Amino acid sequence: MSSAHITFDFTGDKVADRVAKMRSSAVRDLFSAATSSDVISLSGGMPDVSLLPQEAIQKAVEAACGDRRALALQYTSTDGLSGMREVVCDLVRDLGIRCRPDDVILTTGAQEALDLVAKVFINPGDTIIAEGPTYLGALQAFSAYEPDIRCVPLDDEGLRMDLLEEELKRLGKGAVKFLYTIPNFHNPAGVTMIAERRARLVELAEEYDFLIVEDDPYGRLRFEGDYIMPLKALSDKVIYLGTVSKVFAPGLRTGWIIAPKCVLARINLVKQGTDLCGSAFNMVVVEHYFRDTPWQETLQSFIETYRERRDAMLEALDEFFPPEARWTHPEGGLFVWVTLPEYADAGSILSVALENGVTYTPGDSFYPNGAMGKNCMRLAFCFASPDKIREAIRRLGSVVNERLGLYRAFLEAGAIRGPKPV
Amino acid sequence: MSSAHITFDFTGDKVADRVAKMRSSAVRDLFSAATSSDVISLSGGMPDVSLLPQEAIQKAVEAACGDRRALALQYTSTDGLSGMREVVCDLVRDLGIRCRPDDVILTTGAQEALDLVAKVFINPGDTIIAEGPTYLGALQAFSAYEPDIRCVPLDDEGLRMDLLEEELKRLGKGAVKFLYTIPNFHNPAGVTMIAERRARLVELAEEYDFLIVEDDPYGRLRFEGDYIMPLKALSDKVIYLGTVSKVFAPGLRTGWIIAPKCVLARINLVKQGTDLCGSAFNMVVVEHYFRDTPWQETLQSFIETYRERRDAMLEALDEFFPPEARWTHPEGGLFVWVTLPEYADAGSILSVALENGVTYTPGDSFYPNGAMGKNCMRLAFCFASPDKIREAIRRLGSVVNERLGLYRAFLEAGAIRGPKPV
Repeated sequence: MSSAHITFDFTGDKVADRVAKMRSSAVRDLFSAATSSDVISLSGGMPDVSLLPQEAIQKAVEAACGDRRALALQYTSTDGLSGMREVVCDLVRDLGIRCRPDDVILTTGAQEALDLVAKVFINPGDTIIAEGPTYLGALQAFSAYEPDIRCVPLDDEGLRMDLLEEELKRLGKGAVKFLYTIPNFHNPAGVTMIAERRARLVELAEEYDFLIVEDDPYGRLRFEGDYIMPLKALSDKVIYLGTVSKVFAPGLRTGWIIAPKCVLARINLVKQGTDLCGSAFNMVVVEHYFRDTPWQETLQSFIETYRERRDAMLEALDEFFPPEARWTHPEGGLFVWVTLPEYADAGSILSVALENGVTYTPGDSFYPNGAMGKNCMRLAFCFASPDKIREAIRRLGSVVNERLGLYRAFLEAGAIRGPKPV
Repeated sequence: MSSAHITFDFTGDKVADRVAKMRSSAVRDLFSAATSSDVISLSGGMPDVSLLPQEAIQKAVEAACGDRRALALQYTSTDGLSGMREVVCDLVRDLGIRCRPDDVILTTGAQEALDLVAKVFINPGDTIIAEGPTYLGALQAFSAYEPDIRCVPLDDEGLRMDLLEEELKRLGKGAVKFLYTIPNFHNPAGVTMIAERRARLVELAEEYDFLIVEDDPYGRLRFEGDYIMPLKALSDKVIYLGTVSKVFAPGLRTGWIIAPKCVLARINLVKQGTDLCGSAFNMVVVEHYFRDTPWQETLQSFIETYRERRDAMLEALDEFFPPEARWTHPEGGLFVWVTLPEYADAGSILSVALENGVTYTPGDSFYPNGAMGKNCMRLAFCFASPDKIREAIRRLGSVVNERLGLYRAFLEAGAIRGPKPV
């Protein structure tokens, strides 16, 4: 046996078709290279868990190590501990969703929920619809099952219903398996779907016979504006995904699906083979966090912190970014979406930005096969302090101004061809 | 909106082909019905977590709530925290496997490992080989990707190499994607693959060009006999799966894959879409359990307890089961496999057994589509006390004797047709 065995790829011809087509996210690869502490990251949607009080964590863990140890350390049912499913029902009742514990299945974060939904519904070649741009992790989850993903654009009021209806007419009734949407504080676009569009979307789902998958990780992180009812409150048929990752801690990997029984039965079946069951230990911890600690106060401190950081980002963008750039004004959540002039390439700007000590996520990561969004950037304001955010946007603004200036100069000198700057 | 929406299945035509073929395990369904405390369960492979000292759990959790809180509560990389991956390297070094943290990816229990391996390698219609019988959860994981699963029989020395070679000759070189095996204290068969067969299996993998997936959840639970090197110690190319579920706690859902880099890279890519990353909190807890507590002592108490329970089961089988029945003599692990005469139906016996206060798992659960093993039962000795086990086998022996007697009487009276009892 020689260690040379592992230096080459002997599995090439064995890998399944679904994987041969996958490419690692260029962004993730770049981040693993960016380790300097001078770099300010505006890339990851990582909540600032330093805001979680240590007492609350200790209180939440108490039962899992004590009275409820035998339960917490053991396998649990595939749908998860009923106590934690009751907590989910309590949490979503505030949002206008009425359900009972047997309408809920717990998942390893909402990411597993995306995988399970895709595994239940997608045959290779099936058509699904997503917002354009949409969540990178959803694209990764869905792509493994080889669907045809159609993206419908967003504007400041969320998914464009006129364009959606055009697409549905083209495809015809029953042609779409499901539509995936993030109505609140969209990742990456930062926009929120207005109430009228939500009502219309539910109507269209009936008319054209498709399922709605509503992903709501950020809904409780509202800084301003009025609360809007989730799609799940408008139709029983909606498949609703939630998570504690943005209101408590992603390290506990606790998400959930609320769905009609006929959907849940299939998800349960598929989850048996995927991971058997989630972590009972984490379920007990999360249950007690929401039962025994002042979690609303902690959530309030998340909201205030992120609002302050969003404000810092928006002010700095005004100050440092070129007039040709546009960006969204998120009423909550973690992300601002910046659109540069069409001739800008956010992917190549990223390598210069990294040298200048700032990272972000280029927009093409949020479209299937990176087909669009090349002139866009997602900026996360959740993790860095307001001062760091201001400094990051200053650095980034300077890189962007320089690159756009270079482009214009090349264009005027006739050294390159491309769209004329306005 | 009417609640009538959720009373019927409106998704039938939307469900993917892979799911339309899945059936919920009849066994699992039956168990959810069996809630009486009078029932002694010999069905689940649940470790007896009451043997875990509370101090050890508290010690293990300390860092996750304290010093390492920021890490434990946050997202982690897809391959998992390096500290926990180092622990894996230390654990498997005792078993004869040499690896470094970047040869390891952490998974949500070994069940997720099975799903990820299947997702990376199986195209619909691909041929894979498993032992017959084999682990129910592996069949569920693999089936989602629609392979043709060929089962090769076991005997008391593990997978039958002569029959495997016959099958490989029939299929031809390169025709098999991978072979899945549980060499130590097989689930459900309770047998262990002898060293000579392990060496031969590795040779055959080279000769016929297939990958080996070695699942080793029970390897440390040896009651007697000599330690045998894992397949992974014989060939770098083996994909080795481990878990803390049977040596610590399944409730922490921590498993791992040790594999060549070219395999790990694909598994990482697929895991990004499946659940993004595992629970950092659980990784920190498990890491500290193996670093800061006397886990070998606790493991020794698992081993002694299970040995005593196995002995109780084997003695009771001798005393209460009919002479036509045969069973395996496990040198470790959690399971005994009983083979009744061919005319017995372990599935229909189960419903009578349940009425008489004992459950087990019928053998056909451990074959693809339940095609074989109908006259077999898996008996788990891990969870009930020796007294309960004796009582359970007494009850079960009485049911089995009665059913076999009835069958013989019907046959003699000409009321049914079937194989003649010997």
